[in-house]
Order: sequence, then C-alpha cells, then structure tokens
Amino acid sequence: MPYTSVGRQIVLLGAGRVAQHLGPALWRAGHTVTHVWSRTPASAQQVATQIPGALPITSLDLQAVPAAELYILCVPDGAVPAVLAEAVFPAAALVVHTAGALPLAVFAPYAGLRGGVLYPLQTFSPGRLIDWPAVPFCVEAATPADEALVAAVARSLSQVVELVATPQRQQIHVAAVFACNFTNHLLGIGHALLQEAGLPFTLLEPLIRETVQKALAQPPFTVQTGPAVRHDAATLDRHRALLLGHPQWQQIYNQLTASIQAT
Amino acid sequence: MPYTSVGRQIVLLGAGRVAQHLGPALWRAGHTVTHVWSRTPASAQQVATQIPGALPITSLDLQAVPAAELYILCVPDGAVPAVLAEAVFPAAALVVHTAGALPLAVFAPYAGLRGGVLYPLQTFSPGRLIDWPAVPFCVEAATPADEALVAAVARSLSQVVELVATPQRQQIHVAAVFACNFTNHLLGIGHALLQEAGLPFTLLEPLIRETVQKALAQPPFTVQTGPAVRHDAATLDRHRALLLGHPQWQQIYNQLTASIQAT
Repeated sequence: MPYTSVGRQIVLLGAGRVAQHLGPALWRAGHTVTHVWSRTPASAQQVATQIPGALPITSLDLQAVPAAELYILCVPDGAVPAVLAEAVFPAAALVVHTAGALPLAVFAPYAGLRGGVLYPLQTFSPGRLIDWPAVPFCVEAATPADEALVAAVARSLSQVVELVATPQRQQIHVAAVFACNFTNHLLGIGHALLQEAGLPFTLLEPLIRETVQKALAQPPFTVQTGPAVRHDAATLDRHRALLLGHPQWQQIYNQLTASIQAT
Repeated sequence: MPYTSVGRQIVLLGAGRVAQHLGPALWRAGHTVTHVWSRTPASAQQVATQIPGALPITSLDLQAVPAAELYILCVPDGAVPAVLAEAVFPAAALVVHTAGALPLAVFAPYAGLRGGVLYPLQTFSPGRLIDWPAVPFCVEAATPADEALVAAVARSLSQVVELVATPQRQQIHVAAVFACNFTNHLLGIGHALLQEAGLPFTLLEPLIRETVQKALAQPPFTVQTGPAVRHDAATLDRHRALLLGHPQWQQIYNQLTASIQAT
C-alpha cells in the first residue's frame, strides 16, 4: 500500500459489496473506520466484524457517535438521496458518495454538508480479491481543500487517482457499462450457447483473452474481426438462423452487426 | 511444440491472416508446406517467403504441382465454394477448410475429394503472436481415417484438439462472435466514449481485466453487475440521455439492458 501520512477517522454508510471491500482496505491503509451503518443490524455487524475497531450502527443520527473526518456512502445509487435526506450529520461534515453516475450536485440541497465523490472504477463481487493499488479512483469535491482530503484517502489505497468533474465521471460510467456490464452479458450468451451444445466454456478462453489483450493494445475499432466487418452475408444469415430460438439474442446480434458495419 | 511422428506435405490455399499465422506454425511443427496459393502473386510470394521451402503459386491447377497429403483452405468463408469449384485437385485429395461457420457438406458436390475441417478457435491479427499450444482446434472429416490425419496435424500444433461435428462447430462459432467480435465492439464503444471525454482508455483496463477474469471463473450470468441488473431506473435514464448523440449505441444500450433484465 502507498504511504499515508495521516490515518483518517471514517464512517461507512452501507454494508453492500463496496463497503465489504472498501472497509477492510481503508483499515489496511492506516485509516480508522469507527462505524459501519446499515438499516439491517446483521449487515452492519457483518461488515464491522471485518474491520478491526469498527462498530455497527443502525441509526442515521450520526450526531450520536463521535464526529468523523469523512463519511463514505456505499449504498446503491438510488438510495443515496433518501439516506442523505434522513441522516443527521454533524455540522459541516464531509460526505462522499462512491457512485459513478450520481452528480456532485446530489449534495446541493444540504447546505450544512461538504459533499464529494470517491468513485472506485472497479466491479466488486463477493470473494474476489481487489488489486487496490491498480484501481482508478475518480475524486471530486466542492472545494480544493476537500478535494485534497478525498484525494489523499484515495491515494492511500491506489496509485491511480484522478480529479474528475461530474460530466466526465458520468461518461466514464457509461463507458464502463459497455466495457464491463455489457461485455459480461455477451460472455454469458457465449457461455449459454456452448452449454446448449454440450461444450465447455473453456474452449473460448484463449479467444476471449486474446480479444481483450488486443483491444487493450490497439484501439478496438481498428482491430475488429468477424463476419460483420467482413460483410459475410452467408455467415450472418447462418448465425441468425441458429439464434431463432433466442429472439432477444438475435436482436442483439442484428444490432451489434449493424453497429460494427456502420463504424 | 508437441511431438509429431510424421511431418506432412501440405499446400496452403489463401494468403490472408490465417495463412500468414498457420503456415509458419506448420513448418515449426515439422510439416513441409510445399506451396502457397493466392490469386495475387505478391500475396502468395509474401506468405511463401515466411515458410522455409514453400513456393508461391497462382494457378488453381493443383495437378501441375506434386501431390500433397493435405490441402488447407485459408480463404475467406465466402470464397470457399468458388475456390473449390475452380480448383483442380489430384484424385482423392484431402482438402480441409478452416472456417467456423461452413458445414462439412460444402465438399459434398466434389465426389473426387475427401473433405474435412481444421478450425482454429482464435482471432488472428497482423503482428500478434499466437500461443498455438493453447489454441483449441475443432476437427471434422468424412471418414475416421481422415479425421485421424487432420487431428494429428492439429495435435502437432496444439494441446486442445476436439472432434466436433458441423452443428456443434457452428454453435461454437456464433458463441465466439458474441464473446469475441461483439465484445471487441463494446470495448470500442467504451474507448470512443472515454476519448470524447478526453480520458485515456487505460482507466478502464483494471475493470475490463477483472470483468473477464470473473466471467471465466464463474458462469457470467451469475456474476452480472451494473444498473441494468439492479433495475436502477435513474441511472439507466441518465445513461440514455448521455447517449443521445449516438442513437445506434443507445439502441445497443437498450437492447442489452433489456436482455440482462430478462435473464
């Protein structure tokens, strides 16, 4: 972990996958996570036990516990406004969210708060280790001083910390949906099609790895291969016929083929 | 390279990316590529010079050169029928194609030929090294003896050789289009969206790598993340608005979101 000059007192709000990964990482980076909040006592408890010294809480009256230097919202994007509306923070508390898509302006209605963003550009799943030093963090805050504080916390975890304004961060987020969430769905379709034929997904592994290596080495549009870019009508028709039993996948096939051909 | 008991005499038909990669690999595996055919003299010459001992030819009268034990068609899928119709092979020549989507029956009109398939499940691009021992080969032929010969050639290159009938191979090919060609296009959209925001694609690299690692470790549908699977309507709307300038990508966004939510 990078050297961190000052460990911060931090409260985590949320007990989902981001909190489960971020909490222990903050502790290992030298910070003190004093409390983990969740509406569900068992969830708050479960995350708090993973972080030495952390206490579970279920009340959003955060004036009832010692003030922290940083409150990190790890709840689902859609829950952020409700949690902000309900929570009672100490005066002038610094509160950041961890969402790619939410604007900094989500804090605007709360004049008593200093708002900010600490967005880790990674996908978090139970049981998977995160290579924190390589995870890009997008940081934003309303003042240079708060930006510096949030960036310092990010730099205590990662070597890739960028100050990114809301519109750029939202563009990153939609790009990540294409490159990560949608890519996973396509890999899932590939997996399902092989399973139907009684074949193991491992057959596609070298091809998938090479595809990604190549796309990271050169702009992906410049290295496109396959029947769509070749305008190989006979193969395209054969594939559409094979997908007759999966109308939704056939539509995706047509849409992506058209987009490749229009690029 | 795996041990190969008998090097074969092979003629390559085609001088594109598959021939450029496969020709030298066959030579390194102990085979003799006697001739490389292309309609374009410079292309035949260019590939032949990469394979010690190989001669370029531009005539499809293959009775004019010494008979080979194996003729490998590396032309685009769409060109296979025309090349087969035009070529004059020695009697009972063993001719294989390297296409994922073409049926073995493409050889049916040519009673004088023994047809087969040698399909390497990999994407080939200029300048990229192929890890041949890991490339799965799908092999098919009309008789067990020919299947054994083609499989032996495949095994001289790779440790992953499967006997796969046409319908299964075609299913593998459509799965590969989703997992490789379409994935590359989505990565390209992610690249383009970041470029618009003046941000480097490397920001997404850890996320892309983790996405693929995860999808190869567990069935991808079971580890889906993102706003679609969370039914996060506010984020979905925000993303659709960001994509207004790219109607085709917005359609892909809607289609993939619907498919994720239906899975």
